[in-house]
Amino acid sequence: MMSVPHVVIVGGGFGGLWAAKRFRKQPVRVTLLDRRNHHVFQPLLYQVATATLSPGDIASPIRWIVRRHRNLRVLLGEVERIDTGAKQITLADGAELDYDYLIVATGASHAYFGHPEWAEYAPGLKTLEDALEIRRRMLLAFELAERETDPTRQQELLTFAIVGGGPTGVELAGTLAEMARRTLRDEFRAIDTHRTHIVLVEAGPAILPSFPEKLRVASRQSLQRLGVDVREQTAVTHIDAGGVNLGAERLAARTVLWAAGVAASPVTATLGAPLDRAGRVLVNADLSIPGHPEVFIVGDAAAFLHQTGKPLPGVAQVAMQSASQAAKNVLRLSERQPTRTFVYHDKGSMAIIGRGSAIADFGWTQFSGLLAWFAWLFIHLFSLIGFRSRLAVMMQWGIAYVTFQRSVRLITGDGGRGRP
Amino acid sequence: MMSVPHVVIVGGGFGGLWAAKRFRKQPVRVTLLDRRNHHVFQPLLYQVATATLSPGDIASPIRWIVRRHRNLRVLLGEVERIDTGAKQITLADGAELDYDYLIVATGASHAYFGHPEWAEYAPGLKTLEDALEIRRRMLLAFELAERETDPTRQQELLTFAIVGGGPTGVELAGTLAEMARRTLRDEFRAIDTHRTHIVLVEAGPAILPSFPEKLRVASRQSLQRLGVDVREQTAVTHIDAGGVNLGAERLAARTVLWAAGVAASPVTATLGAPLDRAGRVLVNADLSIPGHPEVFIVGDAAAFLHQTGKPLPGVAQVAMQSASQAAKNVLRLSERQPTRTFVYHDKGSMAIIGRGSAIADFGWTQFSGLLAWFAWLFIHLFSLIGFRSRLAVMMQWGIAYVTFQRSVRLITGDGGRGRP
Repeated sequence: MMSVPHVVIVGGGFGGLWAAKRFRKQPVRVTLLDRRNHHVFQPLLYQVATATLSPGDIASPIRWIVRRHRNLRVLLGEVERIDTGAKQITLADGAELDYDYLIVATGASHAYFGHPEWAEYAPGLKTLEDALEIRRRMLLAFELAERETDPTRQQELLTFAIVGGGPTGVELAGTLAEMARRTLRDEFRAIDTHRTHIVLVEAGPAILPSFPEKLRVASRQSLQRLGVDVREQTAVTHIDAGGVNLGAERLAARTVLWAAGVAASPVTATLGAPLDRAGRVLVNADLSIPGHPEVFIVGDAAAFLHQTGKPLPGVAQVAMQSASQAAKNVLRLSERQPTRTFVYHDKGSMAIIGRGSAIADFGWTQFSGLLAWFAWLFIHLFSLIGFRSRLAVMMQWGIAYVTFQRSVRLITGDGGRGRP
Repeated sequence: MMSVPHVVIVGGGFGGLWAAKRFRKQPVRVTLLDRRNHHVFQPLLYQVATATLSPGDIASPIRWIVRRHRNLRVLLGEVERIDTGAKQITLADGAELDYDYLIVATGASHAYFGHPEWAEYAPGLKTLEDALEIRRRMLLAFELAERETDPTRQQELLTFAIVGGGPTGVELAGTLAEMARRTLRDEFRAIDTHRTHIVLVEAGPAILPSFPEKLRVASRQSLQRLGVDVREQTAVTHIDAGGVNLGAERLAARTVLWAAGVAASPVTATLGAPLDRAGRVLVNADLSIPGHPEVFIVGDAAAFLHQTGKPLPGVAQVAMQSASQAAKNVLRLSERQPTRTFVYHDKGSMAIIGRGSAIADFGWTQFSGLLAWFAWLFIHLFSLIGFRSRLAVMMQWGIAYVTFQRSVRLITGDGGRGRP
């Protein structure tokens, strides 16, 4: 057997999988490493957090996705550090892995703007565990409110603060408002779920800052119609178990969710490459790092400044396109050809607000409302990995849409036993 | 408003829900208390443990199930003790609840035959959390085997011991065998999943002791065809992290599952009523307890000896029928009529072995194979609470049956990060 180069891909998200795709039937040996056994379709994660979909509907085992790639093996393991000099990866359990080429697609996690102590009170939404934790806290708040006899404390339990007015914050706020007003309406005896107070806090001048003015206005109006209290130009200065401080104002809220800052996974710091403030690697135009043409960084772990001078958004399209280019560059290097520059093609962006309500910006056209919602639905459904997932999600959504039922309202984990 | 008696039902399993059903539109005020917010359809729990169904497919929020019962409120809370003298329940968080009539439907949990230290190494299957923990351990064992280079340790990781040859043990063994031989077959590179060794250990003379001889033989043969190593008349004498002792024989198995003993929930001990060895209350013929005609015990929390002198099996039918009778007796007492004796009508029993393979015993007829499997499927599907659950389960099952795919193979929780 001829010796072929060994490519290691770190991360099984959109970046890692799209890189793996390019290597199928190519003369390379690939190892795909992830600390989890499953790929998560992140755009639908908020649906798990708000009890419409099950974790299994939006996640697939990585092994299953790449089962037909005969030149690829999948390993479950967490990367501790990368030694670019020795071309070696050390895993958390001490195991070592050598590579000829490396693609780092480790993504991003939450950043609390220098306040790591807020993490405990305001969970973010990046993994299935995060989504289940948010679901648990939201549902438990209603249960505790039903048992609470003091009206002030009851209202604190029915107050939800969502920090960050990007797409994730908007999706959480809109869906939670619908759940309170429609789904849970008839099920409680001591509380009126219409008294639920959902506050969406955005520090910048407007929610959904990456969208054009027209769509921002439409979104704000849709959220307000759902009863969401939208606070723009409002900075969160403190978070604790009882609520948040919005400058001088204290908002008593027993549930706080974090949809604001992100930071690249800490693995990037071990590469010895220049990073931006969020820990993202400042990559070369071909996505390699300075001094190491065999190491490529893709997706949320990288800051792509070469094209426009500004970082690209942290969306699936950027991860997929950059991963594809990095994989092509690996194949070009292995054939002793020069690498090529990564050029991002913006295919547009969308955000969902609630049932039958979304916004879409495709550059040449912009629209909102039911049409945007259907567009969002179909584009995301057809990107779902796995036939079963697509079917299951379509069905669950259809039923939720018609009946207002959110069937996955399960409080599981430690708190499920009435001991929050 | 006329004062009506207050009935407290403790537990939202089959017993609690069937009692609640009887009280709808009756002149009573009902409080349904559970430490979880959801009812679990226990007969399908093994399908969650073996990655075919999602927790949301077999569980429904209790509030949603009883949303139309206007005389009923649902409370999330864990019972600490019951004071039958004062007619008062104390919850784990200190709250107190008075009742006029009480129905205890707290069910059963695992019992390790005086070896509580085994619990850590051999999880049982009673709750959704249990099912997810079993799923996590099973899937993680294959992942670790793929990374293991020592052949002895690799085989230990591929060895699964299941303790207890009742329906749950048989279902777990059969489904796990199918998963190893079919579902996972093409996805691993370093291990051959056909080398998976599944050992089903039963201390008694035969597996499925409650079934007639003919069906026991058929089950044993089906399991053996699937490659399950069936060990009858074999007692487990020790369990630790590395495996189990079967008398003098040591079986090195990194995954051990418990499907043997059960014990009534510890709440029964606070009633001051006579208990059997498994902690079940020895109820009167009308399901009340001695000295307290207003307290009724139903389902797995009770030992019903009055009918045949032997306890009834711990199945859903017993819970539902006893709960119904207890509720009727509460209504009779509130109308100053005498209570009636509980008579159990055995509607038959079934167990599933694998894909297209089950056994059914309806007394007047007994059969096994594909027909029994279909019978099992339809009887259980139609008992599922919630239209969506029925549809979702049917679809997931159909796809799993045709494709051999088990789509919910997610390792979640702490161990999901490659750190078992």
